[in-house]
Amino acid sequence: MSKKQTSIEAVRHSLSHLMSMAVQELYSNVGLGVGPIIENGFYQDYDLPEAINPEILPKLEKRIKELIKKNIEFKQRDVDFKEAYELYKHDPYKTELIDDLKAAGEKKVSFYKSDWFDNLCAGPHVKSTKEINPEAFKLTKIAGAYWRGDEKNKMLTRIYGVALESKEELGAYLEMMAEAEKRDHRKLGQELDLFCFSDLVGPGLPLYTPKGTIIIDELQKHVENVCRKYGFQKVKTPHLAKKILFETSGHAAKFADELFSVTSPKDHEFNLKPVQCPHQTQIYASKIRSYKELPIRYMESDRQYRAEKSGEIGGLNRVYAITVEDGHSFCTVDQVKEEIKNMVNIIRDFYTSLGLWKNHWVSLSVRDYEHPEKYIGDKKDWDLCEKILQEISDEMKLEAQRREGEAALYGPKLDFMFKDAIGKEIQIPTVQIDFATPKRFGLYYINEKGEKVPPVMVHRAILGSYERFLALIIENFAGAFPVWLSPVQACIIPVSEKFKEYAESVGAQFSESNVRFEIDASDESLGKRIREAEKQKIPYILVVGGKEETANLVAVRTRNKKEQETISTEKFIENILKEIAEKK
Amino acid sequence: MSKKQTSIEAVRHSLSHLMSMAVQELYSNVGLGVGPIIENGFYQDYDLPEAINPEILPKLEKRIKELIKKNIEFKQRDVDFKEAYELYKHDPYKTELIDDLKAAGEKKVSFYKSDWFDNLCAGPHVKSTKEINPEAFKLTKIAGAYWRGDEKNKMLTRIYGVALESKEELGAYLEMMAEAEKRDHRKLGQELDLFCFSDLVGPGLPLYTPKGTIIIDELQKHVENVCRKYGFQKVKTPHLAKKILFETSGHAAKFADELFSVTSPKDHEFNLKPVQCPHQTQIYASKIRSYKELPIRYMESDRQYRAEKSGEIGGLNRVYAITVEDGHSFCTVDQVKEEIKNMVNIIRDFYTSLGLWKNHWVSLSVRDYEHPEKYIGDKKDWDLCEKILQEISDEMKLEAQRREGEAALYGPKLDFMFKDAIGKEIQIPTVQIDFATPKRFGLYYINEKGEKVPPVMVHRAILGSYERFLALIIENFAGAFPVWLSPVQACIIPVSEKFKEYAESVGAQFSESNVRFEIDASDESLGKRIREAEKQKIPYILVVGGKEETANLVAVRTRNKKEQETISTEKFIENILKEIAEKK
Repeated sequence: MSKKQTSIEAVRHSLSHLMSMAVQELYSNVGLGVGPIIENGFYQDYDLPEAINPEILPKLEKRIKELIKKNIEFKQRDVDFKEAYELYKHDPYKTELIDDLKAAGEKKVSFYKSDWFDNLCAGPHVKSTKEINPEAFKLTKIAGAYWRGDEKNKMLTRIYGVALESKEELGAYLEMMAEAEKRDHRKLGQELDLFCFSDLVGPGLPLYTPKGTIIIDELQKHVENVCRKYGFQKVKTPHLAKKILFETSGHAAKFADELFSVTSPKDHEFNLKPVQCPHQTQIYASKIRSYKELPIRYMESDRQYRAEKSGEIGGLNRVYAITVEDGHSFCTVDQVKEEIKNMVNIIRDFYTSLGLWKNHWVSLSVRDYEHPEKYIGDKKDWDLCEKILQEISDEMKLEAQRREGEAALYGPKLDFMFKDAIGKEIQIPTVQIDFATPKRFGLYYINEKGEKVPPVMVHRAILGSYERFLALIIENFAGAFPVWLSPVQACIIPVSEKFKEYAESVGAQFSESNVRFEIDASDESLGKRIREAEKQKIPYILVVGGKEETANLVAVRTRNKKEQETISTEKFIENILKEIAEKK
Repeated sequence: MSKKQTSIEAVRHSLSHLMSMAVQELYSNVGLGVGPIIENGFYQDYDLPEAINPEILPKLEKRIKELIKKNIEFKQRDVDFKEAYELYKHDPYKTELIDDLKAAGEKKVSFYKSDWFDNLCAGPHVKSTKEINPEAFKLTKIAGAYWRGDEKNKMLTRIYGVALESKEELGAYLEMMAEAEKRDHRKLGQELDLFCFSDLVGPGLPLYTPKGTIIIDELQKHVENVCRKYGFQKVKTPHLAKKILFETSGHAAKFADELFSVTSPKDHEFNLKPVQCPHQTQIYASKIRSYKELPIRYMESDRQYRAEKSGEIGGLNRVYAITVEDGHSFCTVDQVKEEIKNMVNIIRDFYTSLGLWKNHWVSLSVRDYEHPEKYIGDKKDWDLCEKILQEISDEMKLEAQRREGEAALYGPKLDFMFKDAIGKEIQIPTVQIDFATPKRFGLYYINEKGEKVPPVMVHRAILGSYERFLALIIENFAGAFPVWLSPVQACIIPVSEKFKEYAESVGAQFSESNVRFEIDASDESLGKRIREAEKQKIPYILVVGGKEETANLVAVRTRNKKEQETISTEKFIENILKEIAEKK
């Protein structure tokens, strides 16, 4: 960790303590939940005697600035458990945290004292508040957060803060956040009517409306078409399986806490699949395979279910029902390299078509060489796989950055990292080599000599989960999707009731060509109907009246363009079909 | 019930008793499970001291014929419970059945005695075995069957028999059965590699291989395209929901025994959806709807889960994971008629394209007028709905047959009945009017006057469950699917290794045109490779050698045709694309 990182971390930790001082000056009896630093800032959970609203934030900020000016020193000391319990005898939250440290076998716990405020904390902190730039932080929001993320516990009040190196950085960051808020997928998802949640169905279980379903289906069709060109075949597997399937794969142990159990009054016992891989091995295993058939490549886009903490469920990024686009190649050791190149090509083709390629970097995630015991499989296999991945990076000019210790349990991998709308890095596509799973399931093929040999399994994800991907592209495009993804590609607006019939005849021509359209012939004013279509971010608004009707024309307004252009309906269809086909 | 029906029923019942006599002559200590009559015959479950094989069937038949010749009389009497228990003190199965009758409040139970064989039975029976035609029955098979259909109970031995009116009818029936066996979807499904089951995943949970997935996807695309033309929009809903969703819809009560519960170590509680309707109401309910938006039409093809009895699970017809094609229209009362006509048109278009239309009849399923208490909703609504359905039948020349007492709980319906490969009637498409569900969920729209009014919900299924539908079409086409549904549409076979490259260049042209193909360039003989492709029922086998290569030709063998025709690859592609587009 560089010196600079430590310094900003220390500033954030210390600001969090100053905030707690300011809060405790206002309320005498405050419970203190967790208060970690996070990317760009910090938060602290409080059990407060009353609900607070955002108006309190400027007051707290003002008080923190005053405290900073007082050049308060932070002093660390180690405290034994008896004293720690005594210090927090009125705070059940801190007491629970001390319990955890004790259970973990710690001998003493670390406290930091600043002025009168004495706080259980591992640090790091600044030496004195004079190291803190009072112009480079801001308290940003208040949210509810269940104690320990569990819905059954009390909801605490979480106050977030941002702290950066300079006033300028803070300003730029806050501007980006304001833009991100406008693009928030939860907000846009509702405005554009893409998905919804229902109290009767439950949180974490998104329902896709017709418009959202079109986007999911278009993405699925596209990723499947790209993969099909590289030899992937689609399969379908059920959401249930007996527990032994997941015991065999290792997921029952790995995902013990996230595994949903399924039972019935007739004493059935199943689990919901938390991943697709184990089911797909069973299609491979349904026949005796010869080396001549390999590689066998399966792909599947389907929901899987994970029992996330109820308190952490929200939007599309954290759900119980995740629609995952997953695929596997079963191949010989000699075929691994070609298979992975195949998959990298798929990733390149897919992200290029979305205009996201190049806005990424690649991680070659290898072992932690000092701790070989953390992995399964032969050293020989690992050496081979890492060599193959390095060669691929060189040959395909991926410029992959080697990251030690980032490999999967069963093998090294290539991870592709993209930036989201607010510049946060997210990893979606991945290619992973796996020697272990085929052996666990006793998979084999018959080689040239008639021997049974386990295949290698290469895992690959292209768009990952549709939920996270949809959230990403809603925010990336701010809801203004490229035409091929737009639920409504053109909105036809007759200038008056008189031209409704003509609007419908234009619509009929669109139907023929599979152009998705809506007609807005409501009794609202023309201006209002145009503004409504613009708000819905429809790529083309076609206004039709007398002039258009006489010659089968449409007056085209292109999204984000001022000029209006009148062309023949036929020409418009030709243009839009080209645009759809090229995925522009 | 007509006199004739009674008579053949009596014959079947009596043959079952004669079979039990023959079995008991062979084994002294036989437990008797259930023994009902079924379509075309009867069966009886036995707890036998040893396993038996089909070789025993001719012996039993011979003995039954001897018994028939003895003109044995069947004599009915009512027996009190004390005597009944005494008579079956050595048979735990019959004792349990007597328990049931007692629990049901019966005062006495019915016994039939034939010669020395005294059997608990409600009849009816023949007066004497001389009424039985000894040439018109046959014992057909032996199967295992769990006592009460429950996997945890003992597996009994079930012997099936067929009994018809005449020797001729029996002959024709047995011939049809032999044909059906060849077409059995379980057998063909494996031979053609369409789906599989896994011991680790569990029974009742089919996994679709790449080939089976293509058929399911093609069917789905087709049904969705047809429905889209009539204004249906696709939605996607999760498989889980809180119980309150199904309590509100009434399914928690109706499907109490079939409802899977989902729990987690984090105390989540959900149910798996047994139907799609309740989830779809929640998309309707996610916005305030105006009369201007109606009708709103949703469709969805997705898995739903029902906890069937484990002992009854088998093939694709009885599974836990059912992929259901379900759709609903939410409309005003005034729109109901047009909506239903719409749906009948969809059914007609879809089944016509499969060549199954006309091989059907329509049931107008109305109330049981003598028992109005069996239904929910106003008499006025019922009268209106039944009138609408009758008008539709008349106007669309459906010649629907009125079936009293066949309506759904919430409204009358149109059911479309088809015949399967062995002539058995199956009901798949259905259109049902439902006033109740929208009210249960408090759904509404704002009418012209600004009032909140509940919409009418019209349910429709076009292809029902993909599992049953796939079983039906596998058996209907005996695996020789029309080209558009064939997983492999053309198999390219080079006459020798030398022409493999040319075969691949033909394949590349197919890829371009989305024609699904395989190349068989293995080292087997040409004859063997052609026979293998024929066995896979591939519609076109294209043999290519020197002559073909020189002029970009293919030698085409069409499925079920003797002649071979040599044409240009381009012409072949043009022909097959036309055939696919026309769904011939």
